[in-house]
Amino acid sequence: MLLGIDIGGSKIAYALADPAGEILARRRRPTEPTGNPEQDLAGIADDARGLLAQAGVGEGDLLGIGVSVPGPLDIDRGRVVRPPNLAGWEAVPVGKILQTEFGCPVALENDANAAALAEYRFGAGRGCQDLVYLTMSTGVGGGIILGGHLHRGRMGTAGELGHTPVEWPGEPCACGLRGCLEAYLGGVALTRRLRAQVPETSACVALAGSPEAVSTVHWVEAARAGDPWALAEMDRFNHHLAQAIVHLAFSLAPEVVVLGTIPIAAGDALCFDPVRKHVAERIWPHQAPYMKIVPAELGDDLAYRAGLCVALEAIGKD
Amino acid sequence: MLLGIDIGGSKIAYALADPAGEILARRRRPTEPTGNPEQDLAGIADDARGLLAQAGVGEGDLLGIGVSVPGPLDIDRGRVVRPPNLAGWEAVPVGKILQTEFGCPVALENDANAAALAEYRFGAGRGCQDLVYLTMSTGVGGGIILGGHLHRGRMGTAGELGHTPVEWPGEPCACGLRGCLEAYLGGVALTRRLRAQVPETSACVALAGSPEAVSTVHWVEAARAGDPWALAEMDRFNHHLAQAIVHLAFSLAPEVVVLGTIPIAAGDALCFDPVRKHVAERIWPHQAPYMKIVPAELGDDLAYRAGLCVALEAIGKD
Repeated sequence: MLLGIDIGGSKIAYALADPAGEILARRRRPTEPTGNPEQDLAGIADDARGLLAQAGVGEGDLLGIGVSVPGPLDIDRGRVVRPPNLAGWEAVPVGKILQTEFGCPVALENDANAAALAEYRFGAGRGCQDLVYLTMSTGVGGGIILGGHLHRGRMGTAGELGHTPVEWPGEPCACGLRGCLEAYLGGVALTRRLRAQVPETSACVALAGSPEAVSTVHWVEAARAGDPWALAEMDRFNHHLAQAIVHLAFSLAPEVVVLGTIPIAAGDALCFDPVRKHVAERIWPHQAPYMKIVPAELGDDLAYRAGLCVALEAIGKD
Repeated sequence: MLLGIDIGGSKIAYALADPAGEILARRRRPTEPTGNPEQDLAGIADDARGLLAQAGVGEGDLLGIGVSVPGPLDIDRGRVVRPPNLAGWEAVPVGKILQTEFGCPVALENDANAAALAEYRFGAGRGCQDLVYLTMSTGVGGGIILGGHLHRGRMGTAGELGHTPVEWPGEPCACGLRGCLEAYLGGVALTRRLRAQVPETSACVALAGSPEAVSTVHWVEAARAGDPWALAEMDRFNHHLAQAIVHLAFSLAPEVVVLGTIPIAAGDALCFDPVRKHVAERIWPHQAPYMKIVPAELGDDLAYRAGLCVALEAIGKD
């Protein structure tokens, strides 16, 4: 049996599956970090034991555990370095702790890489060899699968597509650099911009109650209702997203570019169609039919599948 | 024995080597296309036979032939599609023709990919796993080696780094798009710009005789002599080159970025050092030590090694 654990900023998701990927039991709960990572991990181990008991699986039947967690990570040493949203977690040897606890191999992967693996194996990338995954939540995460394998780079820093430059020098990014994709498409940066720039006359304000309350949800809703300002901001979003995809077309030529979160909320008419059009205008005509730009498919299953894909790595089936 | 053939726009290079890569014989001659690809290939086969005879190697001892040729290629069918500088070559089945001629496997690779393989196996990339090669001759070519393997992409269009956008929309590129790296760093585009923009007072004009005669060689020489205009143009060149490398840092995180031609002519002070500095300012501090930016090492040997690396592919040793 395989155990997948996805430690997100707001929720932890657990899934128990057989080696073929059939899910036997799953659970999700709020993250609620205590500030003490040892205590947090003891809680996670308790949850995992609960899930095993619920499915009637003995600890001895556990072949491997996979943990999907916000980066940066020290993959070789199985350590979480300093994840945002997990207070007090600093160089935590998650791999070693869980391995001692359960006596089976444990693999760690950053959440965007794990999500890329999940979409590749179980979602929008099934059947392809080369896939790029891009997700826009608080920041912008990316994962690159080439020839059916995750490309991590020697230091695990490959696929950090949120920090690819789209303006030069461009706006400041939370990472300390400027012009990063994340400074335009990341939820935090985007929300800050929407609140600062929204005109009182925009439907965003009516939906949110006040400019200070505008979120990306209001923005997408206003754009769908035809609000001109929201639509102009959507154009800007699509332009930067297309630019990042064009770079990938010429370097990696992925068969599939899978987009998560905001593009899915915005849908075909507001996001996917214009992005496809922008990209097609900036790549060669013979490339376009071989690079699909599609929504992520796993939805609520993503966290379960992401953890389980990392568990497959733990048992050497990546 | 392996035979490598590098069909360049101006020269064809042949090398005969043992499977370990020890070169037994080599030859280079002007390309001089006749306009009839069958006739050109008959001449190439004659040259190859001459080289075998010279080394005392029988045709029956030939294990594989590798052909490095300007793209685009149809790799699966062993066809050259429509290489620039080879008049009359259109969908030429080079692989099939040479296979019939010599009775051994033949592999084809575009020249930049073959050069990337050569620098990876025998040059500046020895001992690394992830390498990007970028060369600036008439155009800008690129090749990507990941995990020790060439990344071609499903349709063979990966690694076309000359067409990654560095300005948006940017200057027109010979490929029909705009803002491509090649529109700024390629020899043809660069020479056109130098001639159109050079002020009469620049040392470039004194070196070349007239603005219309200025070449990239004069430009580099003038920059080395401290000519302010030539130096400003060098800054522009370095800026765009750095931008392309930053993209690669966040997507692929290569251990080594190998630069050929113009950067080598310009050297450390004019090109490599400023490019390294620009890149370091635009990536994370912990990334910089793990991505070396170095000159290509093979020099005049490149064409021989490139063909031979493709021959290794022909016998399944890629």
